[in-house]
Amino acid sequence: MKLPELLISEVGPRDGLQSVKAVMTTASKLCWIDALYAAGLREIEVCSFVPAALLPQMADAVDVVRHALTLPGLTVMALVPNVRGARAAFAAGVHKITIPVSASEAHSLSNVRKTRVQMVEEVRNIVALRNEIAPTVKIEAGMSTAFGCTIQGEVKEDDVMWLANEVIRAGVDESGLSDTTGMANPAQTRRLFTRLRAEIGDKAGAAHMHNTRGLGLANCLAAFDAGVRTFDSSLGGLGGCPYAPGASGNVVTEDLVFMFEAMGVRTGVDLDRLIAAREPLQAGLPGEPIYGMTAAVGLPMGWQQRAQYGN
Amino acid sequence: MKLPELLISEVGPRDGLQSVKAVMTTASKLCWIDALYAAGLREIEVCSFVPAALLPQMADAVDVVRHALTLPGLTVMALVPNVRGARAAFAAGVHKITIPVSASEAHSLSNVRKTRVQMVEEVRNIVALRNEIAPTVKIEAGMSTAFGCTIQGEVKEDDVMWLANEVIRAGVDESGLSDTTGMANPAQTRRLFTRLRAEIGDKAGAAHMHNTRGLGLANCLAAFDAGVRTFDSSLGGLGGCPYAPGASGNVVTEDLVFMFEAMGVRTGVDLDRLIAAREPLQAGLPGEPIYGMTAAVGLPMGWQQRAQYGN
Repeated sequence: MKLPELLISEVGPRDGLQSVKAVMTTASKLCWIDALYAAGLREIEVCSFVPAALLPQMADAVDVVRHALTLPGLTVMALVPNVRGARAAFAAGVHKITIPVSASEAHSLSNVRKTRVQMVEEVRNIVALRNEIAPTVKIEAGMSTAFGCTIQGEVKEDDVMWLANEVIRAGVDESGLSDTTGMANPAQTRRLFTRLRAEIGDKAGAAHMHNTRGLGLANCLAAFDAGVRTFDSSLGGLGGCPYAPGASGNVVTEDLVFMFEAMGVRTGVDLDRLIAAREPLQAGLPGEPIYGMTAAVGLPMGWQQRAQYGN
Repeated sequence: MKLPELLISEVGPRDGLQSVKAVMTTASKLCWIDALYAAGLREIEVCSFVPAALLPQMADAVDVVRHALTLPGLTVMALVPNVRGARAAFAAGVHKITIPVSASEAHSLSNVRKTRVQMVEEVRNIVALRNEIAPTVKIEAGMSTAFGCTIQGEVKEDDVMWLANEVIRAGVDESGLSDTTGMANPAQTRRLFTRLRAEIGDKAGAAHMHNTRGLGLANCLAAFDAGVRTFDSSLGGLGGCPYAPGASGNVVTEDLVFMFEAMGVRTGVDLDRLIAAREPLQAGLPGEPIYGMTAAVGLPMGWQQRAQYGN
């Protein structure tokens, strides 16, 4: 059994479910997460720890984490925006948290009501709490609006690098870049990830690209060229603020896996089982549009993944 | 005024219209072609020369060419499958023809009822006719199924290179590669175009990629990396055998132009005018689905093309 050459980090159960109005039942979530796991995904962002009054979709976060922790070898990940959320996530037993930190000052104020400097201070406090009560938990800072902002427009690359260095100094284990607004292009993606690696070395984390204008996979290819080996995506392209009918926000996991496997890059994910995982997703969110061209068209004739992985 | 750095070759009026059941009126075609030209496109495949009994959509080919020839600086291109079509195209006054030649023997027999060797002979006869009666007309051979075939499955890269050399020896001016079946991946795309350039030098032609499984732009990026500077695409993703709802066949011109312009690569195309060209297309084909995420979502905040071109 050959090891995967990259990590597909599935964000659907958090990023996806958080973006739709309907609330998926806990039972449906667990069924869907099981299907994602059965397909070979080994890192899943299963929930966020935020007040249920704000996001009723995430009210069952503790139960979801408890179940996910029973799946051997799965990195159970949650999003936390602040110390309070982090405390809840650590108590629930997650393996890894991701903290959203905006490279755009305008987006930071709008999204978490903190300046970027205040948010770095929050990150520092989360790290301190982790060191005290949950020292094995990994912390990622995901840099929102790293490629542009719908509020302030351009985000300077120097700002992105400044913030990456700040969060690493604050003690996070890795920092990735998010195209929150679907404004990235492949040249910029290559340039920023190359620069990120130069700045923070192997603490450079995931590429979280969106497919807003159809460039999602091209940007993932560009990030791959720049050495990125962790990619966020969501099954069926759920979530990530799609702005228009037919426009998925998040990169579609099925299409992303298809691209890399077709290139001969092992993802560890079985495409047939991954496509099958759309069933529990759709069953749990009746009527919600889900995306993905590989699933719609089917795998090409003669398709065989180069290697099969023991799931 | 800075010159474009690559050529977007619009295939919608031929490849697109040939793929839909409805027949666009001649007046609507001319209006659409004018809008494409006004957006800055300088090579348009306006029709194919085939028997009207087979393709009634192309029955007005001569009239369409006559109009297109009035647009200054436009390369007026037509598809021809055989000597008879070539004779008609030369008589109509086109600047360039493209001949489809299948790298897959099975596809060749199915598509043009000729073996590949017989098709190379047809190419040679077309070149002889060109040399005799229309010496200024350029000839491209577009190699269908270069990345895989839905009939025979895998297409050997050696077969593709053999055929490329054959058509060049037969006298064509350039030979491009077509992902007729939507089976290409970026690694393969880079490899094949790199090899094509090594085999036939600057006679290596266009990348004609499909978006069947969502990899169209990623494959165009890969081709660009391998030195390709001519890209076929169609407005609204019309044509190119979409297999499934929401799955465009051809790469969407709007999204392709957006990608390159966002990267800072000049295409010579004005995106606002290009998106406006969807109106006459849709008006001429009422009810026909057209695709494209950039047009659906709109241009990002702060978008400015790096340069404006005099149209």
